[in-house]
Amino acid sequence: MNIKQSLKNIKTISIEHGAGGRKMHRLIRELFLKYFDNPILKKFEDSAEIVLKSCDNKFCYTIDSYVVQPLFFPGGDIGKLAICGTVNDLAVKGARPLYIALSFVITEGLSLNSLEKICISISKITKSLKIFVVTGDTKVIEHRYSKTNWSLDDNTKEEIIITTCGIGEILPVFSNPTLSVRNIEIGDQIIINGNIGEHEAAILLARKDYHFKGKVKSDCAAIYPLIETLARNQCKIKMMRDPTRGGIATTLNEIADDANISIIIDENKLPISDAVRGLAELLGIDPLYMANEGKVIIIADKKETPKIVKLMKNHPQGKNTRVIGEVTERYHGLGVWLKTQIGGLRPVLQLEGSQLPRIC
Amino acid sequence: MNIKQSLKNIKTISIEHGAGGRKMHRLIRELFLKYFDNPILKKFEDSAEIVLKSCDNKFCYTIDSYVVQPLFFPGGDIGKLAICGTVNDLAVKGARPLYIALSFVITEGLSLNSLEKICISISKITKSLKIFVVTGDTKVIEHRYSKTNWSLDDNTKEEIIITTCGIGEILPVFSNPTLSVRNIEIGDQIIINGNIGEHEAAILLARKDYHFKGKVKSDCAAIYPLIETLARNQCKIKMMRDPTRGGIATTLNEIADDANISIIIDENKLPISDAVRGLAELLGIDPLYMANEGKVIIIADKKETPKIVKLMKNHPQGKNTRVIGEVTERYHGLGVWLKTQIGGLRPVLQLEGSQLPRIC
Repeated sequence: MNIKQSLKNIKTISIEHGAGGRKMHRLIRELFLKYFDNPILKKFEDSAEIVLKSCDNKFCYTIDSYVVQPLFFPGGDIGKLAICGTVNDLAVKGARPLYIALSFVITEGLSLNSLEKICISISKITKSLKIFVVTGDTKVIEHRYSKTNWSLDDNTKEEIIITTCGIGEILPVFSNPTLSVRNIEIGDQIIINGNIGEHEAAILLARKDYHFKGKVKSDCAAIYPLIETLARNQCKIKMMRDPTRGGIATTLNEIADDANISIIIDENKLPISDAVRGLAELLGIDPLYMANEGKVIIIADKKETPKIVKLMKNHPQGKNTRVIGEVTERYHGLGVWLKTQIGGLRPVLQLEGSQLPRIC
Repeated sequence: MNIKQSLKNIKTISIEHGAGGRKMHRLIRELFLKYFDNPILKKFEDSAEIVLKSCDNKFCYTIDSYVVQPLFFPGGDIGKLAICGTVNDLAVKGARPLYIALSFVITEGLSLNSLEKICISISKITKSLKIFVVTGDTKVIEHRYSKTNWSLDDNTKEEIIITTCGIGEILPVFSNPTLSVRNIEIGDQIIINGNIGEHEAAILLARKDYHFKGKVKSDCAAIYPLIETLARNQCKIKMMRDPTRGGIATTLNEIADDANISIIIDENKLPISDAVRGLAELLGIDPLYMANEGKVIIIADKKETPKIVKLMKNHPQGKNTRVIGEVTERYHGLGVWLKTQIGGLRPVLQLEGSQLPRIC
């Protein structure tokens, strides 16, 4: 069955179409690209490089909606997440974030107290980054089934959807050449700035569906300060990406497919905390696919990585930085391979939809 | 009771906080401006004028979320609406729309057929305007009460929230001086490009809640081509605004309050179709407060209005253009007054929340 047929066979959109895996990619490529096709969108990056008339600099433009539940979790909340996620999409394109447009779609019944906590959180993170919310929108929607099926329990569940759009200015060091999968060469190394899976683990624990107790904080953070340090030191970076929905497995698969290479990651070198490892084992899920919200994957020539790693380890956002893998020629038609602790290579496939449970 | 107290007295967000009236304004001024305060946001316009380094031109930036039900209605659908609304927010600041960022938050169960219809609609309107969707995001959320209270009827209700963010480039003729309420002077005239209330009427009829039959099409349109015609002819315009949520009553009240003047509108000159007038009478609602999605209010010196009106009447988007009122000194502390058909002045107040029923 080819890809075209596979989308034609579905009649309705399911949760998995939003989970970051193959199903979402098919929806984007077969439906959205079919109708919205243009050279910028086609690059299929989280952030678009745009050209503005009368400007010498290059700019980046990105949008994301945040629907996370619960709204508050250890290490962050939906407000902080909405700013960090959008700022990170700009930062991994080498752009300094400038302006944020912010839209709230609030479900009636949200407490003013929760809304204020979200605003305080947005205020704190934008101030720390010296960026501004310059325009916004507010909509309030009904509890969808309020008229027919209403219970006290439904009423207490607070809901808000936040959409953030960001504009950033590409830093000179990253603008010629532009950061891109096209720069990747065999032998390049893969760097990550710390432990994986912590955002997803924190959300799962905060949901209390599992009655586990664990002390995992989301890694939710805006990683622009780390990237600015690398820029200031003229680091030669080939490309960067933030491994959010679908985790590093999904992000590395996308990179490998786009660049038509393979990536071998070394299980021994993967930074994973004991708490995340334990939770993943209990739930039978793989940390490679667990979402991160303060991580960046950097690909660079192996001659350049020692300098980059040293700078990152000295930065508060990169203390546990590691080289986790390297780029090889395309191997058996698959993008990502794991060199396991017991030896041998295991393929790390792109998921169809999401691991269960869904977290974003 | 002062404004500060009024927000402190509420505990939860209600539908009216998103309806465009006083309650929404309080929420924005007392909560959002408190935490996100900066000189650009403070201008409190639907679209922010932003300065980008290394650029000679000025740019505009705006975001809006669309939650309309039903998704399809005579004259448009949520996709067309999401593009037109954002493009119009740029256009009324005198900006040529350039790039769109587009986010879909889909409720599971949306048919692929509906999603494709929405995409076709977006594709059509963006192509006609020569603008591009350059970046996007897709999330899929659960039917919120699917686990507990599910019925076949709930299942068939299709839901999608679309957020669009737009960047536009301010046209030279509107950049010095910038369009602004600060330009308004006593004696200026108020122009509108056609019939009011048609979007709201079309949505109400499409909902079938009322079992009325009527042939009203939404005025949903991107009015940039009309504004470009005025720009090309070097029309001197003081300010423009699109009277959406809350209708012309709300928009004119905002303008009058910001400029500290009053506006007298002439009931005899208000363009309203018989169908809208009839529906409004049946429902006991006021067309002045009914939403529009293809209308622009233009304020200009009365020496300039004949030229503007002539150009507008010759344009397909302005055939029923009228001068509907004029600017006077602040009168009895209220922003908007209606010169009624039977004579005398009636105040046109800003609503607390929305008229019932809510439509956006």
